[in-house]
Amino acid sequence: MTTPDKVNLAEKLRRFDQLWAPRIVGQLNGQHVKLVKLKGDFVWHQHETEDEFFLVLQGELTIHFRGGDVHLGEGEFTIVPAGVEHRPTAEHEAHVLLFEPLSTLNTGNVRNERTIPEPDWI
Amino acid sequence: MTTPDKVNLAEKLRRFDQLWAPRIVGQLNGQHVKLVKLKGDFVWHQHETEDEFFLVLQGELTIHFRGGDVHLGEGEFTIVPAGVEHRPTAEHEAHVLLFEPLSTLNTGNVRNERTIPEPDWI
Repeated sequence: MTTPDKVNLAEKLRRFDQLWAPRIVGQLNGQHVKLVKLKGDFVWHQHETEDEFFLVLQGELTIHFRGGDVHLGEGEFTIVPAGVEHRPTAEHEAHVLLFEPLSTLNTGNVRNERTIPEPDWI
Repeated sequence: MTTPDKVNLAEKLRRFDQLWAPRIVGQLNGQHVKLVKLKGDFVWHQHETEDEFFLVLQGELTIHFRGGDVHLGEGEFTIVPAGVEHRPTAEHEAHVLLFEPLSTLNTGNVRNERTIPEPDWI
């Protein structure tokens, strides 16, 4: 057999600049590992059946919930449970690792110009 | 509703010293997020049905496969597919983030003194 590939997160992050457009960097157990660059405000949305993991690799990320905010710095993560409305916001550009089911749409239950139906592998 | 918790990886890593004993720090979509400290050689093993994600947070990790080795530095990950024999090794202490299904046993198909049937949450 061949050995599995390794992925360098910094090298993958250098391959794209587009904001709010997750890229896929791995797949396991029906989940994708994604990288995304964020700056500014996203839309309020929820994922009906998918829990979503956000780990900040660089910068700072605030995730707004209807009941309060979670502020994440580098090396911090949170898990947004399925069905919970949230809105990510980053004052400055932030780089985030996501772990979520293959079925997860970036805008969840919302479809608008920011929806990315099929994220690219990089 | 209450807002989700956030987890600081460095703070969690300060809570334990035991080597080769994964601690659970999160759960989503039937998967656990775990932290583990590694030094020395582990046993050859495989996971029959679980893919396993290894992201190096600190130090360096070599994963031996029957067909070759994967050497990971900080900020690098690999995914070990289900059914693939592997043996993690770290010359110096390394800190690693794992994503894997709830059912995953650290020693996979092997049961010995290094098996940890029920990892602790921290």
